[in-house]
Amino acid sequence: MENILDEIQQPVDLHRLSPAQLKQLAGEIRSLIIDTVANNGGHLAPSLGTVDLTLAMYSVFNPAEDKVVWDVGHQAYAHKILTGRKDVFHTLRTKNGITGFPKRKENPCDAFGVGHASTSISAAAGMAVVRDLKQQKHNVIAVIGDGALTGGEAYEGLNYAGDSGKKLIVILNDNEMSIDKNVGALSEYLSKMRLTPQFNKAKKDIEEFIKNIPHIGSTVYKTAEYLKDGVKAAVTAGEWFEEMGFTYIGPVDGHNIEYMQEIFQQVKLLDEPVLIHVRTCKGKGYAPAEENPNVFHGVGKFNKHNGQLIKKPNAKHSYSAVFGQTLVELGHKYQDIVAITAAMPSGTGLKPFSLEFPERFFDVGIAEEHAVTMAGGMAAAGAHPVVALYSTFAQRGYDQWVHDICLQKLPVTLCLDRAGLVGDDGPTHHGVFDYSYLRHIPNMVVMAPKDASELRNMMYTAVNYNGPASIRYPRGSAVGDIQEGEFTQLPIGKGEILSGDGSGIVLMAAGSMVKQAVEAARILAQANIKTTVCNMRFVKPLDTELIDEMAKKGQLLVTLEENALAGGFGSAVLEYLNDSGQCKPVLRFGIKDEFIEQGSCPELLELCGLLPQQIADRLIDFNVNGEK
Amino acid sequence: MENILDEIQQPVDLHRLSPAQLKQLAGEIRSLIIDTVANNGGHLAPSLGTVDLTLAMYSVFNPAEDKVVWDVGHQAYAHKILTGRKDVFHTLRTKNGITGFPKRKENPCDAFGVGHASTSISAAAGMAVVRDLKQQKHNVIAVIGDGALTGGEAYEGLNYAGDSGKKLIVILNDNEMSIDKNVGALSEYLSKMRLTPQFNKAKKDIEEFIKNIPHIGSTVYKTAEYLKDGVKAAVTAGEWFEEMGFTYIGPVDGHNIEYMQEIFQQVKLLDEPVLIHVRTCKGKGYAPAEENPNVFHGVGKFNKHNGQLIKKPNAKHSYSAVFGQTLVELGHKYQDIVAITAAMPSGTGLKPFSLEFPERFFDVGIAEEHAVTMAGGMAAAGAHPVVALYSTFAQRGYDQWVHDICLQKLPVTLCLDRAGLVGDDGPTHHGVFDYSYLRHIPNMVVMAPKDASELRNMMYTAVNYNGPASIRYPRGSAVGDIQEGEFTQLPIGKGEILSGDGSGIVLMAAGSMVKQAVEAARILAQANIKTTVCNMRFVKPLDTELIDEMAKKGQLLVTLEENALAGGFGSAVLEYLNDSGQCKPVLRFGIKDEFIEQGSCPELLELCGLLPQQIADRLIDFNVNGEK
Repeated sequence: MENILDEIQQPVDLHRLSPAQLKQLAGEIRSLIIDTVANNGGHLAPSLGTVDLTLAMYSVFNPAEDKVVWDVGHQAYAHKILTGRKDVFHTLRTKNGITGFPKRKENPCDAFGVGHASTSISAAAGMAVVRDLKQQKHNVIAVIGDGALTGGEAYEGLNYAGDSGKKLIVILNDNEMSIDKNVGALSEYLSKMRLTPQFNKAKKDIEEFIKNIPHIGSTVYKTAEYLKDGVKAAVTAGEWFEEMGFTYIGPVDGHNIEYMQEIFQQVKLLDEPVLIHVRTCKGKGYAPAEENPNVFHGVGKFNKHNGQLIKKPNAKHSYSAVFGQTLVELGHKYQDIVAITAAMPSGTGLKPFSLEFPERFFDVGIAEEHAVTMAGGMAAAGAHPVVALYSTFAQRGYDQWVHDICLQKLPVTLCLDRAGLVGDDGPTHHGVFDYSYLRHIPNMVVMAPKDASELRNMMYTAVNYNGPASIRYPRGSAVGDIQEGEFTQLPIGKGEILSGDGSGIVLMAAGSMVKQAVEAARILAQANIKTTVCNMRFVKPLDTELIDEMAKKGQLLVTLEENALAGGFGSAVLEYLNDSGQCKPVLRFGIKDEFIEQGSCPELLELCGLLPQQIADRLIDFNVNGEK
Repeated sequence: MENILDEIQQPVDLHRLSPAQLKQLAGEIRSLIIDTVANNGGHLAPSLGTVDLTLAMYSVFNPAEDKVVWDVGHQAYAHKILTGRKDVFHTLRTKNGITGFPKRKENPCDAFGVGHASTSISAAAGMAVVRDLKQQKHNVIAVIGDGALTGGEAYEGLNYAGDSGKKLIVILNDNEMSIDKNVGALSEYLSKMRLTPQFNKAKKDIEEFIKNIPHIGSTVYKTAEYLKDGVKAAVTAGEWFEEMGFTYIGPVDGHNIEYMQEIFQQVKLLDEPVLIHVRTCKGKGYAPAEENPNVFHGVGKFNKHNGQLIKKPNAKHSYSAVFGQTLVELGHKYQDIVAITAAMPSGTGLKPFSLEFPERFFDVGIAEEHAVTMAGGMAAAGAHPVVALYSTFAQRGYDQWVHDICLQKLPVTLCLDRAGLVGDDGPTHHGVFDYSYLRHIPNMVVMAPKDASELRNMMYTAVNYNGPASIRYPRGSAVGDIQEGEFTQLPIGKGEILSGDGSGIVLMAAGSMVKQAVEAARILAQANIKTTVCNMRFVKPLDTELIDEMAKKGQLLVTLEENALAGGFGSAVLEYLNDSGQCKPVLRFGIKDEFIEQGSCPELLELCGLLPQQIADRLIDFNVNGEK
């Protein structure tokens, strides 16, 4: 059998393929996805689940003309392969390679850049509006998972788009999970609907029945038995979406290409908002991923033959694991601790806590706003909530953090995982703004640990602190070993000197950059340059006493952070020095005012000039020549 | 008739009042509210609408034990009066007086601080969880308007709380509008429900019918005619909420105290999430407010006898009006301009645009996240959206601004009204963080005009700029006259020298502080102190050339901003000076690291040391004595 994928030059080539050819093509695409992700890591299970859906869509629609917005975008590998990127697909998620998510700059078929959940309906609604203003005729399609549907923005989008009445297709890609098992009332609702007859047949029947009810006769008798159980489910299947102004069609088998084609052909003719409820199986076509869809959601390299993950030989416990284990310890110690995650029980390391304290663990779905405000309500009622979010996703709860937590000075601890550069997920996922978006909020305490042990102590300090505090730590392996047992209460706003006596070049580092600073100091020592290394611990409140001392004794002050330089830690140091009348130059290491692309973490640190050797080189240069 | 309100010492005193007495009390409370708001300004119409509801609630529940969370809180005046604040109610919204919103520090019956919409269900859900963990027995009640229900966070809250199954009462206070007429599919849905029979009678009937359907007989015949029209509405009334896991009760007349009491008594016995759909009339009991509920939503002082607003004698056109009028001009000039508001067509000044270009105007409801992402979709499709939000509410769209707009460098203009200190609405409404939460985002242009004319030119500049830009301006009267006609394109990142030659004290001011700086310079001139005044125009990109020149020539650099000092404009100047190797002290005027309470704007500016005389005094002191 010849390879069909080789013949696909542009998506419109799919329009002439037979169902059998499409089926073969699906297999070829799955192979390419599995091969690539086995090598590069990536979002395997979601993208395998949507291969058939993508083929059905693109054999009816044309993504070069129609606008398709993939929510989150981790299910869009088939889309990428079919829209001119099959030959570069092997570069997936590598530096200068193709990205893991749709991205406007990468390809004209990527109608909207995505990465955070629940944005697709809003973006698509905007595109539909402008299409109509311009009197254009193309279709606009949002593809959204049932997980992303738990986000408030998806509801805002439905509420708007349904009411607008504009032609818009929303495809609900329902696989019963986003990363972990979905939660919430709407997920329950979708579960019920999965049991209703295909394509709303019963609903049409009952509506017909109601229309004809004055002519009581054989109709009622025939329908009666059937109605008994089915009537309520049938009348209300999709009603939730219908009430949002959408015509509901579903549930539809998302692996039956021919059937989906039929439906898409019909829907093309409708001039209204339509929601097509498609059921897919996450990981479809690759047994290990079908069996463990959450393991293969976002996955590192693996052996494609047996599905064994390839662990890095030096892989140590991650910060997430340290966080999770510590929270279990603290949970035993303090009954008032409760834990909240927004659909990331595994990713944030909260699984052990959820098993140990199921009644004190709360997965609220992809709903960061609710997560933060609910924590506020819990704190107001006397609990101490620990909210575990990825730094980049916590951006969704910024207003709630200001308005519901800090303004009321409520005791809530915000643990920000994946803070700093996250690597191959790229700019939508880097967590490089949190110092900047948190430190200007009054009443905040902003911390970052230098290693695993300090993370433990910061958590201990935060849950014993009667106010809002954040702790941020990076993706991946934690520095140092975990020391179980005794906790140390850290004085709020106090850093520590790790080496040196305050003279020489003073490296004031925050969080993940402490390790880099120590390493840079070692290199500098070899060049006979004297340094002092400070672990600042607190970005807010700053250790002003320590800074005063360093400013007095040091030859040059240096700040290091894995955060935007604008408004971040170094910026806070400058504010303090200036406002306290100390005019002292500070050499600031951090992330310049640009979005950082994807790559491995070392590659990205190098790009940002944050590797120890780079730091040392710049300081040597400064020391010898005086920079600038 | 004796005054009943005088006898109410604590809310539980209501439990012994007869329906007739409660009715009389409602009148007394309305009088107190009308008198007070006529004097102080405030949220009249929403609070008049909920007097009967509050009395019914507090004659059954006890807010000293049960936890009541009032969404937004602008409808909670009766709550304040009944919970021990009737004697200080005349200080409403004044400096050191009682606040316009529930606030935990003010009273133990204020279970949660509010001000921004759509948080109540989340907070209440958190309280219900902790109540159950602690095995307590009180009720938790969220009171939320139909407007606030359009916010995504409300949906996230419903989705969570409904699924949790915990005892929780949500009272939907449905008055068909928040500030302006509500929009969205859910509002349409509620409209339909208002037509369904009271208290779901029909629904019970049809369910009964379905249960008995095998026994075909007289039941069917009797019910048939009735069913014909009513069945679908009846089966699905409240279904939307039922599918979210709530038991739906409604619609209920929100001005029938006795009937509401009955329902609350019954609901008290239920151990599950219940949503009670209460219909109220905004402004109830005061004819001018009933007739013009949006005028009397949030209102200044007025003559209570005739409802005439008392205009300040020197009131000029507001910045909102200048914005609105200019956008109409630009709308005629550029066909690609579209305008978006999140439920604030009047407040943001967009009414004229909405009338002139109804097809290019979009009110998306209280849904800032959707507003921003939809703007992104529109921009991706070739439009130039102008999103008009209050600074404080734009916090809700922070993540979307990062992820959907700036990361894709899409041409969207964000116009931030009510930026700076807003006065008597207090800390939940001050817009004092936007420089800090916007300037660290790559690709942003951040502007603030010194006067009306410059606002026009900044809007012109922004809509001609192919990327994201924000313009912020304060509440109230605009400085200077509007000059219609020609627009001037401002060079991006360039400020201007308003007076002086760069020598003396250099006042570098942003936005609203330019006027204060000019005035301070005048005072300093009288003291023979030489100044230079710069209107910086751009907080990002900074006019680094101008700063270089001022740093070289000036005796002292001063920055002035109506924003948090942390991470704001002055912080950006410090970053630039430091990073370009210019060690130069800067005296920074702005808002210190604390939440600012309510008061008149001049009172608050004084509190922050931002009045011209205060600025001048500090600079004189600095000049003479050297500060610090």
